[in-house]
Amino acid sequence: MASSGPVVRHARREDVPAILDLIRELADYEHELHSVEATEAKLLDTIAFAPSAADEASATTAAAPKGLPNTEPISPTKPARCLILLTPAGVPAGIALYFYNYSTWRARAGIYLEDLYVKQSERKHGYGKRLLVELAKEVVAMEGGRLEWSVLKWNTPSIQFYESIGARMMSEWVGMRVDGDGLTKLASLLD
Amino acid sequence: MASSGPVVRHARREDVPAILDLIRELADYEHELHSVEATEAKLLDTIAFAPSAADEASATTAAAPKGLPNTEPISPTKPARCLILLTPAGVPAGIALYFYNYSTWRARAGIYLEDLYVKQSERKHGYGKRLLVELAKEVVAMEGGRLEWSVLKWNTPSIQFYESIGARMMSEWVGMRVDGDGLTKLASLLD
Repeated sequence: MASSGPVVRHARREDVPAILDLIRELADYEHELHSVEATEAKLLDTIAFAPSAADEASATTAAAPKGLPNTEPISPTKPARCLILLTPAGVPAGIALYFYNYSTWRARAGIYLEDLYVKQSERKHGYGKRLLVELAKEVVAMEGGRLEWSVLKWNTPSIQFYESIGARMMSEWVGMRVDGDGLTKLASLLD
Repeated sequence: MASSGPVVRHARREDVPAILDLIRELADYEHELHSVEATEAKLLDTIAFAPSAADEASATTAAAPKGLPNTEPISPTKPARCLILLTPAGVPAGIALYFYNYSTWRARAGIYLEDLYVKQSERKHGYGKRLLVELAKEVVAMEGGRLEWSVLKWNTPSIQFYESIGARMMSEWVGMRVDGDGLTKLASLLD
Protein backbone atom coordinates (compact mmCIF):
# COMPACT_ATOMS: atom_id res chain seq x y z
CA MET A 1 0.00 0.00 0.00
CA ALA A 2 1.10 3.57 -0.66
CA SER A 3 1.74 5.54 2.50
CA SER A 4 -1.08 7.96 3.15
CA GLY A 5 -0.98 11.40 4.69
CA PRO A 6 -3.53 13.19 6.83
CA VAL A 7 -7.00 13.95 5.49
CA VAL A 8 -8.40 17.48 5.61
CA ARG A 9 -12.10 17.94 4.94
CA HIS A 10 -14.98 20.17 6.01
CA ALA A 11 -16.41 19.17 9.35
CA ARG A 12 -19.67 17.22 9.50
CA ARG A 13 -22.24 17.29 12.28
CA GLU A 14 -20.90 14.01 13.63
CA ASP A 15 -17.48 15.66 14.14
CA VAL A 16 -18.86 18.07 16.74
CA PRO A 17 -17.76 16.11 19.84
CA ALA A 18 -14.19 15.98 18.49
CA ILE A 19 -14.32 19.69 17.59
CA LEU A 20 -15.47 20.62 21.09
CA ASP A 21 -12.65 18.51 22.59
CA LEU A 22 -10.12 20.39 20.49
CA ILE A 23 -11.64 23.78 21.41
CA ARG A 24 -11.49 22.87 25.08
CA GLU A 25 -7.93 21.61 24.79
CA LEU A 26 -6.92 24.93 23.18
CA ALA A 27 -8.64 26.91 25.95
CA ASP A 28 -7.05 24.79 28.66
CA TYR A 29 -3.63 25.32 27.10
CA GLU A 30 -4.27 29.07 27.31
CA HIS A 31 -5.55 28.74 30.93
CA GLU A 32 -8.93 30.00 29.72
CA LEU A 33 -11.07 26.89 30.06
CA HIS A 34 -13.57 28.88 32.16
CA SER A 35 -14.16 31.16 29.14
CA VAL A 36 -15.49 28.38 26.94
CA GLU A 37 -19.25 28.77 26.48
CA ALA A 38 -19.30 26.52 23.43
CA THR A 39 -21.40 23.36 23.72
CA GLU A 40 -22.20 20.71 21.14
CA ALA A 41 -25.67 22.21 20.64
CA LYS A 42 -24.31 25.72 20.11
CA LEU A 43 -21.67 24.52 17.66
CA LEU A 44 -24.32 22.60 15.71
CA ASP A 45 -26.35 25.83 15.47
CA THR A 46 -23.60 28.19 14.38
CA ILE A 47 -21.30 26.28 12.01
CA ALA A 48 -22.20 25.50 8.40
CA PHE A 49 -21.40 21.79 8.19
CA ALA A 50 -20.66 19.52 5.25
CA PRO A 51 -23.13 16.70 4.51
CA SER A 52 -22.60 13.70 6.75
CA ALA A 53 -20.72 10.73 5.33
CA ALA A 54 -23.97 8.81 4.71
CA ASP A 55 -25.66 11.75 2.91
CA GLU A 56 -22.60 12.35 0.82
CA ALA A 57 -22.45 8.75 -0.33
CA SER A 58 -26.08 8.83 -1.44
CA ALA A 59 -26.03 12.35 -2.88
CA THR A 60 -27.01 12.59 -6.53
CA THR A 61 -26.34 16.32 -6.88
CA ALA A 62 -22.93 17.68 -7.75
CA ALA A 63 -20.81 19.32 -5.06
CA ALA A 64 -20.11 23.06 -5.01
CA PRO A 65 -18.46 24.46 -8.16
CA LYS A 66 -14.77 24.96 -8.83
CA GLY A 67 -13.39 23.05 -5.87
CA LEU A 68 -15.36 25.23 -3.45
CA PRO A 69 -16.58 23.55 -0.29
CA ASN A 70 -20.04 22.06 -0.10
CA THR A 71 -21.66 22.85 3.24
CA GLU A 72 -24.95 24.15 4.58
CA PRO A 73 -25.42 27.77 3.46
CA ILE A 74 -23.82 30.38 5.66
CA SER A 75 -26.04 33.01 7.29
CA PRO A 76 -25.61 35.89 9.76
CA THR A 77 -26.07 33.58 12.75
CA LYS A 78 -24.26 30.65 11.12
CA PRO A 79 -21.31 32.35 9.43
CA ALA A 80 -18.57 29.85 10.30
CA ARG A 81 -17.10 26.89 8.48
CA CYS A 82 -14.70 24.38 9.98
CA LEU A 83 -11.93 22.28 8.47
CA ILE A 84 -10.93 19.19 10.38
CA LEU A 85 -7.67 17.28 9.97
CA LEU A 86 -7.56 13.53 10.56
CA THR A 87 -4.25 11.76 11.07
CA PRO A 88 -3.41 8.75 8.84
CA ALA A 89 -4.80 6.68 11.75
CA GLY A 90 -8.09 8.59 11.46
CA VAL A 91 -7.74 10.60 14.69
CA PRO A 92 -9.11 14.17 14.64
CA ALA A 93 -5.94 16.16 15.32
CA GLY A 94 -6.64 19.73 14.23
CA ILE A 95 -9.24 22.28 13.25
CA ALA A 96 -9.41 25.56 11.36
CA LEU A 97 -12.55 27.55 12.17
CA TYR A 98 -13.14 30.42 9.76
CA PHE A 99 -15.62 32.86 8.26
CA TYR A 100 -15.75 35.17 5.25
CA ASN A 101 -14.46 38.73 5.48
CA TYR A 102 -14.60 41.63 3.03
CA SER A 103 -12.29 44.30 1.70
CA THR A 104 -14.16 47.46 0.73
CA TRP A 105 -11.40 48.93 -1.40
CA ARG A 106 -11.04 45.71 -3.33
CA ALA A 107 -14.81 45.00 -3.26
CA ARG A 108 -13.85 41.38 -2.74
CA ALA A 109 -14.46 38.72 -0.13
CA GLY A 110 -11.77 36.71 1.63
CA ILE A 111 -11.31 34.37 4.56
CA TYR A 112 -10.69 35.17 8.20
CA LEU A 113 -9.26 32.31 10.22
CA GLU A 114 -10.73 32.63 13.69
CA ASP A 115 -9.01 29.65 15.29
CA LEU A 116 -6.34 27.22 14.21
CA TYR A 117 -5.48 24.40 16.58
CA VAL A 118 -3.48 21.21 16.39
CA LYS A 119 -3.62 18.72 19.27
CA GLN A 120 -0.47 18.90 21.36
CA SER A 121 0.21 15.19 20.96
CA GLU A 122 0.05 15.57 17.15
CA ARG A 123 2.43 18.49 16.65
CA LYS A 124 5.49 18.62 14.38
CA HIS A 125 3.82 16.91 11.43
CA GLY A 126 3.11 20.14 9.53
CA TYR A 127 -0.62 19.86 10.22
CA GLY A 128 -0.99 23.58 11.00
CA LYS A 129 0.65 24.47 7.71
CA ARG A 130 -1.54 21.98 5.90
CA LEU A 131 -4.69 23.64 7.28
CA LEU A 132 -3.44 27.11 6.28
CA VAL A 133 -2.65 25.85 2.77
CA GLU A 134 -6.20 24.48 2.43
CA LEU A 135 -7.62 27.86 3.40
CA ALA A 136 -5.35 29.67 0.94
CA LYS A 137 -6.62 27.29 -1.74
CA GLU A 138 -10.19 28.20 -0.93
CA VAL A 139 -9.42 31.94 -1.11
CA VAL A 140 -7.81 31.40 -4.52
CA ALA A 141 -10.73 29.23 -5.72
CA MET A 142 -13.29 31.87 -4.70
CA GLU A 143 -11.16 34.60 -6.30
CA GLY A 144 -10.94 36.20 -2.89
CA GLY A 145 -8.55 38.90 -1.84
CA ARG A 146 -7.07 38.00 1.50
CA LEU A 147 -6.47 35.33 4.09
CA GLU A 148 -6.28 36.94 7.51
CA TRP A 149 -6.07 36.01 11.18
CA SER A 150 -4.81 37.39 14.49
CA VAL A 151 -2.07 36.25 16.82
CA LEU A 152 -1.07 37.20 20.35
CA LYS A 153 1.79 39.70 20.10
CA TRP A 154 4.03 37.83 22.52
CA ASN A 155 3.71 34.61 20.54
CA THR A 156 6.98 35.06 18.65
CA PRO A 157 7.37 31.43 17.46
CA SER A 158 3.93 31.52 15.82
CA ILE A 159 4.57 34.93 14.26
CA GLN A 160 7.88 33.68 12.82
CA PHE A 161 6.13 30.61 11.43
CA TYR A 162 3.38 32.72 9.87
CA GLU A 163 5.92 35.10 8.33
CA SER A 164 7.84 32.13 6.95
CA ILE A 165 4.79 31.08 4.95
CA GLY A 166 4.18 34.55 3.51
CA ALA A 167 2.03 36.40 6.08
CA ARG A 168 2.81 39.91 7.18
CA MET A 169 1.95 41.64 10.43
CA MET A 170 -0.61 44.43 10.25
CA SER A 171 1.20 46.28 13.02
CA GLU A 172 -0.31 49.70 12.26
CA TRP A 173 -3.82 48.53 13.17
CA VAL A 174 -5.43 47.71 16.49
CA GLY A 175 -8.71 45.88 17.04
CA MET A 176 -11.63 47.43 18.94
CA ARG A 177 -14.35 45.35 20.60
CA VAL A 178 -17.74 45.96 22.22
CA ASP A 179 -19.39 43.01 23.95
CA GLY A 180 -21.43 42.03 27.01
CA ASP A 181 -23.10 44.94 28.81
CA GLY A 182 -21.26 47.40 26.58
CA LEU A 183 -23.20 46.05 23.62
CA THR A 184 -26.67 46.55 25.07
CA LYS A 185 -25.59 49.97 26.33
CA LEU A 186 -24.36 51.01 22.89
CA ALA A 187 -27.51 49.64 21.25
CA SER A 188 -29.67 51.92 23.43
CA LEU A 189 -27.35 54.94 23.45
CA LEU A 190 -29.66 57.10 21.32
CA ASP A 191 -33.02 55.86 22.62
CA MET B 1 -44.19 69.27 10.59
CA ALA B 2 -42.06 67.56 13.20
CA SER B 3 -38.34 67.98 12.64
CA SER B 4 -36.85 64.79 11.27
CA GLY B 5 -33.45 63.25 11.85
CA PRO B 6 -31.27 61.26 9.48
CA VAL B 7 -32.48 57.95 8.06
CA VAL B 8 -30.34 54.81 8.37
CA ARG B 9 -31.31 51.81 6.27
CA HIS B 10 -29.71 48.90 4.46
CA ALA B 11 -28.28 49.89 1.12
CA ARG B 12 -30.17 49.04 -2.07
CA ARG B 13 -28.69 48.36 -5.46
CA GLU B 14 -29.60 51.89 -6.58
CA ASP B 15 -27.39 53.30 -3.78
CA VAL B 16 -24.23 51.85 -5.31
CA PRO B 17 -23.09 55.06 -7.10
CA ALA B 18 -23.37 56.97 -3.80
CA ILE B 19 -21.57 54.16 -1.93
CA LEU B 20 -18.71 54.18 -4.42
CA ASP B 21 -18.42 57.99 -4.09
CA LEU B 22 -18.11 57.63 -0.32
CA ILE B 23 -15.55 54.81 -0.63
CA ARG B 24 -13.48 56.95 -3.00
CA GLU B 25 -13.75 60.00 -0.75
CA LEU B 26 -12.50 57.91 2.18
CA ALA B 27 -9.58 56.59 0.13
CA ASP B 28 -8.70 60.06 -1.13
CA TYR B 29 -8.72 61.37 2.43
CA GLU B 30 -6.21 58.63 3.32
CA HIS B 31 -4.14 59.41 0.18
CA GLU B 32 -4.90 55.89 -1.04
CA LEU B 33 -7.19 56.59 -3.99
CA HIS B 34 -4.89 54.50 -6.21
CA SER B 35 -5.67 51.47 -4.01
CA VAL B 36 -9.38 51.49 -4.78
CA GLU B 37 -10.24 48.56 -7.05
CA ALA B 38 -13.95 48.79 -6.22
CA THR B 39 -16.29 49.51 -9.12
CA GLU B 40 -20.07 49.69 -9.24
CA ALA B 41 -20.18 46.24 -10.85
CA LYS B 42 -17.92 44.68 -8.20
CA LEU B 43 -19.90 46.23 -5.34
CA LEU B 44 -23.15 44.94 -6.89
CA ASP B 45 -21.64 41.44 -6.95
CA THR B 46 -20.24 41.34 -3.43
CA ILE B 47 -22.71 43.15 -1.14
CA ALA B 48 -26.03 41.62 -0.01
CA PHE B 49 -28.46 44.45 -0.78
CA ALA B 50 -31.91 45.25 0.58
CA PRO B 51 -34.84 45.12 -1.85
CA SER B 52 -35.11 48.29 -3.95
CA ALA B 53 -37.70 50.87 -2.92
CA ALA B 54 -40.10 49.71 -5.65
CA ASP B 55 -39.83 46.02 -4.68
CA GLU B 56 -40.26 46.81 -1.03
CA ALA B 57 -43.46 48.77 -1.65
CA SER B 58 -44.99 45.89 -3.59
CA ALA B 59 -43.67 43.10 -1.35
CA THR B 60 -46.31 40.85 0.14
CA THR B 61 -43.94 38.79 2.25
CA ALA B 62 -42.94 39.82 5.74
CA ALA B 63 -39.47 41.21 6.34
CA ALA B 64 -36.81 39.32 8.29
CA PRO B 65 -37.77 38.29 11.84
CA LYS B 66 -37.12 40.17 15.07
CA GLY B 67 -35.97 43.46 13.57
CA LEU B 68 -33.23 41.71 11.63
CA PRO B 69 -32.32 43.22 8.27
CA ASN B 70 -33.93 41.95 5.11
CA THR B 71 -31.36 41.67 2.32
CA GLU B 72 -30.24 39.20 -0.31
CA PRO B 73 -28.76 36.12 1.41
CA ILE B 74 -25.10 36.38 2.31
CA SER B 75 -22.67 33.87 0.80
CA PRO B 76 -18.91 33.27 0.82
CA THR B 77 -18.39 35.60 -2.15
CA LYS B 78 -21.11 38.05 -1.05
CA PRO B 79 -20.55 38.25 2.71
CA ALA B 80 -21.00 42.01 3.19
CA ARG B 81 -23.94 44.16 4.14
CA CYS B 82 -24.00 47.94 4.01
CA LEU B 83 -25.89 50.52 6.06
CA ILE B 84 -26.35 53.91 4.45
CA LEU B 85 -27.19 57.14 6.28
CA LEU B 86 -29.23 59.82 4.56
CA THR B 87 -29.34 63.37 5.96
CA PRO B 88 -32.73 64.97 6.67
CA ALA B 89 -32.32 66.53 3.20
CA GLY B 90 -31.98 63.02 1.73
CA VAL B 91 -28.27 63.23 0.92
CA PRO B 92 -26.22 59.99 1.36
CA ALA B 93 -23.74 61.09 4.01
CA GLY B 94 -22.32 57.92 5.53
CA ILE B 95 -21.88 54.18 5.22
CA ALA B 96 -21.10 51.23 7.47
CA LEU B 97 -19.88 48.20 5.53
CA TYR B 98 -19.83 45.04 7.62
CA PHE B 99 -19.83 41.24 7.66
CA TYR B 100 -20.48 38.49 10.20
CA ASN B 101 -17.69 37.17 12.38
CA TYR B 102 -17.54 34.27 14.83
CA SER B 103 -16.23 33.57 18.30
CA THR B 104 -15.24 29.93 18.76
CA TRP B 105 -15.21 29.99 22.55
CA ARG B 106 -18.65 31.54 22.66
CA ALA B 107 -19.89 29.51 19.65
CA ARG B 108 -21.69 32.64 18.60
CA ALA B 109 -21.71 34.98 15.62
CA GLY B 110 -21.21 38.74 15.74
CA ILE B 111 -20.55 41.68 13.47
CA TYR B 112 -17.26 43.01 12.13
CA LEU B 113 -17.41 46.57 10.88
CA GLU B 114 -15.04 46.75 7.93
CA ASP B 115 -15.49 50.42 7.07
CA LEU B 116 -17.29 53.32 8.68
CA TYR B 117 -17.26 56.62 6.82
CA VAL B 118 -19.10 59.91 7.12
CA LYS B 119 -18.69 62.51 4.39
CA GLN B 120 -16.40 65.32 5.51
CA SER B 121 -19.01 67.99 4.80
CA GLU B 122 -21.52 66.15 7.02
CA ARG B 123 -19.43 65.65 10.15
CA LYS B 124 -20.30 66.74 13.72
CA HIS B 125 -23.91 65.55 13.55
CA GLY B 126 -23.32 62.29 15.42
CA TYR B 127 -23.77 60.26 12.22
CA GLY B 128 -20.83 57.95 12.95
CA LYS B 129 -22.24 57.17 16.38
CA ARG B 130 -25.67 56.61 14.87
CA LEU B 131 -24.27 53.99 12.46
CA LEU B 132 -22.41 52.21 15.30
CA VAL B 133 -25.59 52.16 17.40
CA GLU B 134 -27.52 50.56 14.52
CA LEU B 135 -24.89 47.83 14.25
CA ALA B 136 -24.96 47.22 18.00
CA LYS B 137 -28.74 46.86 17.71
CA GLU B 138 -28.32 44.22 15.03
CA VAL B 139 -25.81 42.28 17.14
CA VAL B 140 -28.27 42.36 20.06
CA ALA B 141 -31.20 41.34 17.83
CA MET B 142 -29.27 38.37 16.43
CA GLU B 143 -28.15 37.39 19.95
CA GLY B 144 -24.60 37.86 18.75
CA GLY B 145 -21.54 38.11 20.91
CA ARG B 146 -19.41 40.97 19.69
CA LEU B 147 -19.20 44.09 17.57
CA GLU B 148 -15.64 44.53 16.37
CA TRP B 149 -13.59 46.70 14.05
CA SER B 150 -10.02 47.95 13.59
CA VAL B 151 -8.53 51.40 13.75
CA LEU B 152 -5.14 52.84 12.81
CA LYS B 153 -3.04 53.05 15.98
CA TRP B 154 -2.06 56.66 15.48
CA ASN B 155 -5.68 57.74 15.12
CA THR B 156 -6.04 58.89 18.73
CA PRO B 157 -9.21 60.99 18.28
CA SER B 158 -11.05 58.01 16.78
CA ILE B 159 -9.79 55.65 19.48
CA GLN B 160 -10.94 58.08 22.20
CA PHE B 161 -14.34 58.34 20.55
CA TYR B 162 -14.66 54.55 20.31
CA GLU B 163 -13.63 54.11 23.94
CA SER B 164 -16.19 56.75 24.96
CA ILE B 165 -18.97 54.60 23.52
CA GLY B 166 -17.83 51.43 25.26
CA ALA B 167 -15.24 49.83 22.96
CA ARG B 168 -11.95 48.52 24.25
CA MET B 169 -8.64 48.13 22.44
CA MET B 170 -7.50 44.56 21.77
CA SER B 171 -3.88 45.66 22.21
CA GLU B 172 -2.50 42.20 22.91
CA TRP B 173 -3.38 40.96 19.40
CA VAL B 174 -1.88 41.71 16.01
CA GLY B 175 -3.40 40.93 12.63
CA MET B 176 -1.66 38.75 10.03
CA ARG B 177 -2.43 38.92 6.31
CA VAL B 178 -1.60 36.91 3.20
CA ASP B 179 -2.66 38.39 -0.14
CA GLY B 180 -1.57 38.84 -3.76
CA ASP B 181 1.30 36.59 -4.85
CA GLY B 182 1.70 35.38 -1.27
CA LEU B 183 -1.71 33.79 -1.48
CA THR B 184 -1.08 31.75 -4.63
CA LYS B 185 2.31 30.76 -3.23
CA LEU B 186 0.80 29.56 0.04
CA ALA B 187 -1.97 27.72 -1.81
CA SER B 188 0.62 25.68 -3.71
CA LEU B 189 3.15 25.30 -0.90
CA LEU B 190 2.57 21.56 -0.48
CA ASP B 191 1.94 20.63 -4.13
